[in-house]
Amino acid sequence: MSGPQETTSAELDAVVLAAVAAAPGMAAAAPTERAGWLRAVADALEAARDELVPLAIEESHLPEARLQGELSRTTGQLQLLADEAETGGPWDVVVDHADPDWKPVPRPDLRRVTVPLGPVAVYAASNFPFAFSVAGGDTASAWAAGCPVVVKAHPGHPRLAAAVAEAVTAGMVEAGAPDGAFALVHGFEIGTALIEHPGIRAGAFTGSLAAGRALFDLASGRPEPIPFFGELGSVNPVVVTPGAAAARGAEIGTGYAGSLALGVGQFCTNPGLLFAPAGSEVVSAAAAALADVGPAPMLNDRIAQGYADGLARLRGVDGVRVVVDGAGGSEPTPSLLEVDIDRFTEVDRLSQECFGPVSLVVTYRDPAQLLAAVEALEGQLTATVQGEADEPLAAELVRTLTPIAGRVLWGGWPTGVTVTYAMQHGGPYPAATSPTTSVGTAAIARFGRPVAYQDVPDPLLPPALQEANPWQLPRRVDGEWERA
Amino acid sequence: MSGPQETTSAELDAVVLAAVAAAPGMAAAAPTERAGWLRAVADALEAARDELVPLAIEESHLPEARLQGELSRTTGQLQLLADEAETGGPWDVVVDHADPDWKPVPRPDLRRVTVPLGPVAVYAASNFPFAFSVAGGDTASAWAAGCPVVVKAHPGHPRLAAAVAEAVTAGMVEAGAPDGAFALVHGFEIGTALIEHPGIRAGAFTGSLAAGRALFDLASGRPEPIPFFGELGSVNPVVVTPGAAAARGAEIGTGYAGSLALGVGQFCTNPGLLFAPAGSEVVSAAAAALADVGPAPMLNDRIAQGYADGLARLRGVDGVRVVVDGAGGSEPTPSLLEVDIDRFTEVDRLSQECFGPVSLVVTYRDPAQLLAAVEALEGQLTATVQGEADEPLAAELVRTLTPIAGRVLWGGWPTGVTVTYAMQHGGPYPAATSPTTSVGTAAIARFGRPVAYQDVPDPLLPPALQEANPWQLPRRVDGEWERA
Repeated sequence: MSGPQETTSAELDAVVLAAVAAAPGMAAAAPTERAGWLRAVADALEAARDELVPLAIEESHLPEARLQGELSRTTGQLQLLADEAETGGPWDVVVDHADPDWKPVPRPDLRRVTVPLGPVAVYAASNFPFAFSVAGGDTASAWAAGCPVVVKAHPGHPRLAAAVAEAVTAGMVEAGAPDGAFALVHGFEIGTALIEHPGIRAGAFTGSLAAGRALFDLASGRPEPIPFFGELGSVNPVVVTPGAAAARGAEIGTGYAGSLALGVGQFCTNPGLLFAPAGSEVVSAAAAALADVGPAPMLNDRIAQGYADGLARLRGVDGVRVVVDGAGGSEPTPSLLEVDIDRFTEVDRLSQECFGPVSLVVTYRDPAQLLAAVEALEGQLTATVQGEADEPLAAELVRTLTPIAGRVLWGGWPTGVTVTYAMQHGGPYPAATSPTTSVGTAAIARFGRPVAYQDVPDPLLPPALQEANPWQLPRRVDGEWERA
Repeated sequence: MSGPQETTSAELDAVVLAAVAAAPGMAAAAPTERAGWLRAVADALEAARDELVPLAIEESHLPEARLQGELSRTTGQLQLLADEAETGGPWDVVVDHADPDWKPVPRPDLRRVTVPLGPVAVYAASNFPFAFSVAGGDTASAWAAGCPVVVKAHPGHPRLAAAVAEAVTAGMVEAGAPDGAFALVHGFEIGTALIEHPGIRAGAFTGSLAAGRALFDLASGRPEPIPFFGELGSVNPVVVTPGAAAARGAEIGTGYAGSLALGVGQFCTNPGLLFAPAGSEVVSAAAAALADVGPAPMLNDRIAQGYADGLARLRGVDGVRVVVDGAGGSEPTPSLLEVDIDRFTEVDRLSQECFGPVSLVVTYRDPAQLLAAVEALEGQLTATVQGEADEPLAAELVRTLTPIAGRVLWGGWPTGVTVTYAMQHGGPYPAATSPTTSVGTAAIARFGRPVAYQDVPDPLLPPALQEANPWQLPRRVDGEWERA
């Protein structure tokens, strides 16, 4: 069965104009109103669960348990972001009363609030048909910021996208959101027209480096440039210290195998690079665990082909040894490769992401050489240390990995990105195009812009800034925080 | 006397490498240490005041009282940003303790902190030789964020730049900042090489649309794009309602004349566009006040030439009437032009900034036509309403101007940007290239990047995130704010 029709240029115009028309009403909405949109959408998705999950299985080839869990994560994320909007934190209110004694000159009454940027273009990801797609984290955080959203469906799951969109629309109507608060569009060319549309004020994307960079360049090159929040993936290095390898090498190898093979290696956070002491037990344990992993389908043929090509390129590099000779094709089994650190540092391509179930083990002997190699890595979503707490090298690794990573882990695995207040999912380029997060409550701040009002009479101020604080927002007043 | 020599490429490399080397030490500095750098620089500038102000007069042709005041503002800004760093707010610490009951999945221990981006390129402005130059707001906020700074001097005041740099360096050494925390470079080509240098992690700029956009494009087009915080100017519309024109038209006209002529019209915030009811007293009063303003020198010949060209273009537009026929040349007197709103909305160029002492009055009769015209304006640093609090049109104007402006004023004038907690100096493009502020304590946040640590043992965490909170930072813990 074929998917939904491609959106035409005229339809795109209509959709963006509706979003532009919806923007002022959404910007004026109170915290409880914003929260209400997100909660109604969460409820509508839960109500449609039995229809959505089978469609997701059919289009993404991912297993049911994973998709049930991903849908729960998606509705939980909507609930958490609703709670966050309701706290009023995203308004980020700062009030400076007029002060004739302010130095060096008297200050007027100044009040700052964060207002929504306006219509946001969200690009759905192939690998998370729920959590990073139509009603995923980018959409939820844009709504929580008060912005209309136009989602570009991923071609890998167009019918699921349409079904999710139907539930979303029902939820938004139920919650009384303005028409135009949400729309879905389909088509490759329409995706580039969307980011260039003058009515769009920001973009958000999860996907490949090539596609994300192309959209970033379009967003930055517009007559009026707009922010583009792209999450472009990562190789997610894991570093095993000699102490950890000696203490629990087999356990680390097994855990690593599990994390790299999770979701057929199709997460942004699968570890693709492991630094291990030469001769340690880590590699043999990982190899043994991977040999037990059976074939599993990739998301789509394009991704399978990209994986086959990437795997062949890695295997073809001089000095790379095959430890686990996995199958390619549309239903691959995991591969494990190995290279000495001397050779690794000579070949740039060995540190690039290969999207799929493969990982490269880099064996080292000299800790100084290890530190130099990890310091030279490009930006990463995550970086993990498997070490012992009393090893000086482990502490040094935590420090050395901080400048290259959005999230530094100790003793665990990077797959599994919990939606919380402190989560940071992003990192220096090319992990992301902007120093922000696409997961967690802090994702909301991406879609706001501060505006200050100077000496505006109280009744003419937006409610968020009125002296009586009718919305009971947390505020910073004359430099001191009040928390409602 | 000629200014300092242009920086060579080799010198630039050395300077940026020193900044890169200084970055980790600056990132690790405690709040009191960061504050100490800024305070020592403020003290060093105050100590050099009697040397710096005469140099500034000589190179900028600005009057002494203005430059004394601007230096006070600059040192006051360093003090305020030092105080802000000392509060610990810029670390923006969020702690989520591990929670086995977190939904939909248990959460690990996650702790987020804002770390500095690394070396920042700051471009000095022509029109504020102190406050937006070598030790101005961009530099101060980058230091307060923990970043090394490389300043590109403005060619309009190179010797002042060198003298300020000497005081800055003395202050930074006194405060124990790492070598490489600050450097000054000179030259046009070195300015573009600077923003493209791989060691530079962000740019900050105040100046013209053309130069700012060129640098923004370079920053965005790098192999690794970096944030570029440009403040590119504004025409700063002022709207007078019929009620205000009737109640105090002459007073408004006089006030407007004062604001537009301030600093020979060479502020980012001089009002260049006035919407007034046709036939009101505002225009005649403004004209009378402007006729009394004598000639004053512009900052430099290039700016004077640009002003002469821009003024001639505006005067040459069909339908534009000359109300005050000011002189051009290197020491201009103010000009006032007038056009009907019908004609204004037909000619795009009439809403563009002309840097210098000229303003265009747009006369209107129909409030609906007025609202449509202001709604269609491009992004502005400021927008001002001169109205009466009980006029429905005035309230409507506050709402209509919010989406296009960074700061909305009531009853005052946009010149004079106080450095406070709530100040927002920026606005939608082309007012700025990013939805941030370059003035006030919130300017610090531009230069940070969040990093999360997952399950990292307490002794291996940076002090900002340790459970005992040794730096006594304000924190959000498990969703609730603690304020130290």
